[in-house]
Amino acid sequence: MYKERIERVLARMKAAGLSQLLVSDPKSVFYLTGVSVEPYERMLAFLVRDDGKHVLFLNRLFNVPETEYEEVWFSDTDDSVGMIADRIDKSGRLGIDKEWPARFLIPLMERCPELMVVLGSDCVDGCRAVKDEEEQKLMREASRINDIVNVRAREYVKAGMTEKMVADFIDANFVKEGAEGPSFTTIVSFGANAADPHHEPDDTVLKEGDCVLFDMGCVKDRYCSDMTRTFMCGETEDAEFAKVYELVRLANETAERMIRPGVRFSDIDAAARGLIAKAGYGEYFNHRLGHFIGQTDHEAGDVSSANESLTEPGMIFSIEPGIYLPGRFGVRIEDLVLVTEDGCEVLNHVDKNLRRV
Amino acid sequence: MYKERIERVLARMKAAGLSQLLVSDPKSVFYLTGVSVEPYERMLAFLVRDDGKHVLFLNRLFNVPETEYEEVWFSDTDDSVGMIADRIDKSGRLGIDKEWPARFLIPLMERCPELMVVLGSDCVDGCRAVKDEEEQKLMREASRINDIVNVRAREYVKAGMTEKMVADFIDANFVKEGAEGPSFTTIVSFGANAADPHHEPDDTVLKEGDCVLFDMGCVKDRYCSDMTRTFMCGETEDAEFAKVYELVRLANETAERMIRPGVRFSDIDAAARGLIAKAGYGEYFNHRLGHFIGQTDHEAGDVSSANESLTEPGMIFSIEPGIYLPGRFGVRIEDLVLVTEDGCEVLNHVDKNLRRV
Repeated sequence: MYKERIERVLARMKAAGLSQLLVSDPKSVFYLTGVSVEPYERMLAFLVRDDGKHVLFLNRLFNVPETEYEEVWFSDTDDSVGMIADRIDKSGRLGIDKEWPARFLIPLMERCPELMVVLGSDCVDGCRAVKDEEEQKLMREASRINDIVNVRAREYVKAGMTEKMVADFIDANFVKEGAEGPSFTTIVSFGANAADPHHEPDDTVLKEGDCVLFDMGCVKDRYCSDMTRTFMCGETEDAEFAKVYELVRLANETAERMIRPGVRFSDIDAAARGLIAKAGYGEYFNHRLGHFIGQTDHEAGDVSSANESLTEPGMIFSIEPGIYLPGRFGVRIEDLVLVTEDGCEVLNHVDKNLRRV
Repeated sequence: MYKERIERVLARMKAAGLSQLLVSDPKSVFYLTGVSVEPYERMLAFLVRDDGKHVLFLNRLFNVPETEYEEVWFSDTDDSVGMIADRIDKSGRLGIDKEWPARFLIPLMERCPELMVVLGSDCVDGCRAVKDEEEQKLMREASRINDIVNVRAREYVKAGMTEKMVADFIDANFVKEGAEGPSFTTIVSFGANAADPHHEPDDTVLKEGDCVLFDMGCVKDRYCSDMTRTFMCGETEDAEFAKVYELVRLANETAERMIRPGVRFSDIDAAARGLIAKAGYGEYFNHRLGHFIGQTDHEAGDVSSANESLTEPGMIFSIEPGIYLPGRFGVRIEDLVLVTEDGCEVLNHVDKNLRRV
């Protein structure tokens, strides 16, 4: 599995004219080697070389099982940057991880004055965007748990509860179902709070006529889920709510129906956005349609007017149109979708009919 | 206040031969400007120039009150690195923050081929190590709350409770006392768990004869506290415990007694370590004696055999000797101390006599 992933990275390096790439994002290192380390301020790096002589740089304080790569171990007092300098072609180009901090990069450049450094982590991020079978299995499982907990939370929420109570319930149920925890701060928004797409749960109390928005996801075996559903508490006097709800649902389903390999991301965004704009709500849908997801909730890549690239089998991203009416309510409906060989698999199975809670 | 701080940074820049320094650590930016932003993946930078024409670079999504510096605002689609390039001396040396990621640094270098980048954030970190009066007041207040909650947790903990329960109690009481929250993951360790200095609270149940270790701290108005106390649950049959406890207490108090301006950090470490080694426990004290602290729990600077520099009035750091006997127990006693003009002020006031819980 790791061998295949590295082959894909090497192909992208070749296209970018890179013979060596230093990967330091811990999630990318895990993706390519299976080595799972949170290095904090210490150095973790994986050097990918086109001659196949890849090297892992590890601090002795890391607890890592043996790997199939050359391992260079160092302690806190060792010159770890010097050890990298010894393993690279010092007069060539070296791809650098976009997150590598100056405290490593500048000493490396000082030590290798002829080295040409360029940003290179796109070579890995591009591969991570296309999930292999193992990853698809893990993403399905994380979404399966998310579905279960979403339904459970919908049955739990009642007028009189606070947003925080319900968010705590969701987080606890993720763990109960075997997940490591939430993949981002669980969003539970009642009433007008739902009109702020980034509202964080507070002590707002749910009352009859409020909308209820859950934007939630969990991490299971390192992979993330992410789904949004919006409900209504009892009956609302706001006649516009049902109309807006159906419009958002239509935008979500229209976008999902057009997904198959070779579709331009900006066209998917435009299809959903066009429906909403045509109905007069364009200015109330103020974010992109979706984002890529995998080991982190937001990975490189999105579904937006700016993304002119094409869908490929194995890509997993969110489809999450929303309409936010300030001071009144907000509606967002979000699924994760996997591009298949001839269409699209929606990873979430919680129905999207308007439900009362 | 900010003017004074910037003057101190400029003096250090001059000593380092730097006429321009790009500060990006959000805590350093706050320290020098009062601008409080968590930029996540977006760019935040403060350019300090020796001609006094300092510039703040801000994303339009940041919510920032007006400052007294030139402000350069950009949006997500703007060329923010280019805006920095326009404001620096492109053919000189530029000090760079040690945490600045390659995704900004490499494009800046590509745009300014004659620019010489060097690590420069020591100029700010060195100033932040010496707390001014305003900061000393905030650090005292954070430790005052820590003292209160430590005593409360000592009175709360009982045989039959789990580590997690007690850690949750501590965290909740920090908030109750007006703190923002814990300054690091609260450590509550029972019995043999205390022999691992980095043990995280789990479902271990406290029983008679276990030692109880609390390593805790809170953030209040952005500044941190950090203190450790070790207790005994009832009576222990391990005759060595009381002896080890008194030895750690002696090491803690001996180190604190020698602190005044002009003392070498390595000598403070050696005094505490020497006492423990002489008693035959040298190999069981396997970490440095202390670390600096301020806006984060661990700041640049430590009390260790490797630090040959001298104490200065205004410095605040921890003194935390420990002895860890694997499979049996661990003892650590930690205070924060402030170097004064003629001695040392211990910021924690919880007594250190061996207490039963």
